[in-house]
Amino acid sequence: MKILQLQLHVHEDKKKNMEQLARYMEEVRGENAGLIMVGEMFNCPYQTEYFPRYAEKEGGECWQMLSALARKHQVYLAAGSMPESDDAGNVYNTAYVFDRQGRQIAKHRKVHLFDVDIEGGQYFRESDTLTAGNGCTVFDTEFGRMGLCICFDLRFPELSLEMARRGAKLILVPAAFNMTTGPAHWELLFRARAADSQCFFAGTSAARDAGSGYTAWGHSILTSPWGEVIAQMEEKEGYQVSEIHLEDADKVRRELPLIQTASGNPVRQNGSVSVH
Amino acid sequence: MKILQLQLHVHEDKKKNMEQLARYMEEVRGENAGLIMVGEMFNCPYQTEYFPRYAEKEGGECWQMLSALARKHQVYLAAGSMPESDDAGNVYNTAYVFDRQGRQIAKHRKVHLFDVDIEGGQYFRESDTLTAGNGCTVFDTEFGRMGLCICFDLRFPELSLEMARRGAKLILVPAAFNMTTGPAHWELLFRARAADSQCFFAGTSAARDAGSGYTAWGHSILTSPWGEVIAQMEEKEGYQVSEIHLEDADKVRRELPLIQTASGNPVRQNGSVSVH
Repeated sequence: MKILQLQLHVHEDKKKNMEQLARYMEEVRGENAGLIMVGEMFNCPYQTEYFPRYAEKEGGECWQMLSALARKHQVYLAAGSMPESDDAGNVYNTAYVFDRQGRQIAKHRKVHLFDVDIEGGQYFRESDTLTAGNGCTVFDTEFGRMGLCICFDLRFPELSLEMARRGAKLILVPAAFNMTTGPAHWELLFRARAADSQCFFAGTSAARDAGSGYTAWGHSILTSPWGEVIAQMEEKEGYQVSEIHLEDADKVRRELPLIQTASGNPVRQNGSVSVH
Repeated sequence: MKILQLQLHVHEDKKKNMEQLARYMEEVRGENAGLIMVGEMFNCPYQTEYFPRYAEKEGGECWQMLSALARKHQVYLAAGSMPESDDAGNVYNTAYVFDRQGRQIAKHRKVHLFDVDIEGGQYFRESDTLTAGNGCTVFDTEFGRMGLCICFDLRFPELSLEMARRGAKLILVPAAFNMTTGPAHWELLFRARAADSQCFFAGTSAARDAGSGYTAWGHSILTSPWGEVIAQMEEKEGYQVSEIHLEDADKVRRELPLIQTASGNPVRQNGSVSVH
């Protein structure tokens, strides 16, 4: 499969962000990607006060535009994430995936909200305006089973392992690391999660904009089930396209049996440690 | 605390391995280390057929020599690992830790046995002669709480996370990666486990001996709770000594709340994902 990661600037104007995505999807037609992916909060500046203002319900205006874009280009579209509101007034950091017919086939609400306060570094509290999700999200495509989580979710190995055990071979991670955690941990975590979970991992970020309230690290990345970097961008706007074979995950799992999947490919694992 | 990692050659003669350790402990006296650590199977060639032949019960001859060495030098001794037999005839890959008085304060039997078959790379089946342990091992020292696991155990993030949640701030990992998994994953896993579990990790290997049945990667390593490499050796016999402050783990856990410890330092974690 060909996966295309779009690393875009995020503007204050929601409509402008959507139009930008539409324009890019037109431009990259010739790449013949099977799946196109964008970053976390791709239509909303990454600042807590914006989330409630930009939020829409599932099926809202942006959702409809995304569905139409997937259908128009007949491509799987992993539409990064955007603020989602529910009837109770909660706001979530939510990622949708649409199939080639524009049907929603996956939805993940960020489970682990990003609350940090690093001495001399980044301060951020998503929980000021966001509510956490509680699901482990896997879904099927014509290429194989995939998983989906968002940015800080990547810090918690159990979630990735659980997606792998449920059969995911590629895990999509719209994300926005910053200038503190990016250089320290971005590549490290995408390589390590891939090696631990024996999956491909695709991390897609916004492009860096030093003038914004939250400066993204960029460096959209794709890692292999053996923990290698397949492709990585720098900080500027643009895209990268990579051809991968999801069945490579099966080979790694056979050779080095770490992952016991729920169905198929049962792999022996010696001993067990009870967690919780 | 000062931690000293001894990266030694392993000889066919068990007694020679023990004498070598005794000689090194004499030589490094001037370093004033608080804890000395050696590698996996430091007294037995790392080949499955040797494990039953070299195995001793807890309290056996090697165990007594180790206890005496710790007492003589008044140092914590994390005695890598060695084959341990029990009354039922099982053999384990077991790590002991002794305190400055030579008392055993921790014991860990390797939980995840190393069974791999990598195309064009390493083949090994520990389970041919070894039985797996099933414990999560943490223990207290004058420096703070530590955890203990062995080599392939490091591949399973839940075990490290569980040690961290039980309060471990330094996790000792006698290990023996090889020429396939070493270059691919040794540094990656020690950095990532440290960043995920927000602990110091000390990985101590045997020195490389290209003529042996299993060629160790060497590269004994110490990583920080922020996922940095503090010190790393090359492949040759020798030692490295490092000064670390276990309370640095608390600072990282406060700034970037990932680990919810069972007691003290309670850290909020949004949402939760049920595992198993």
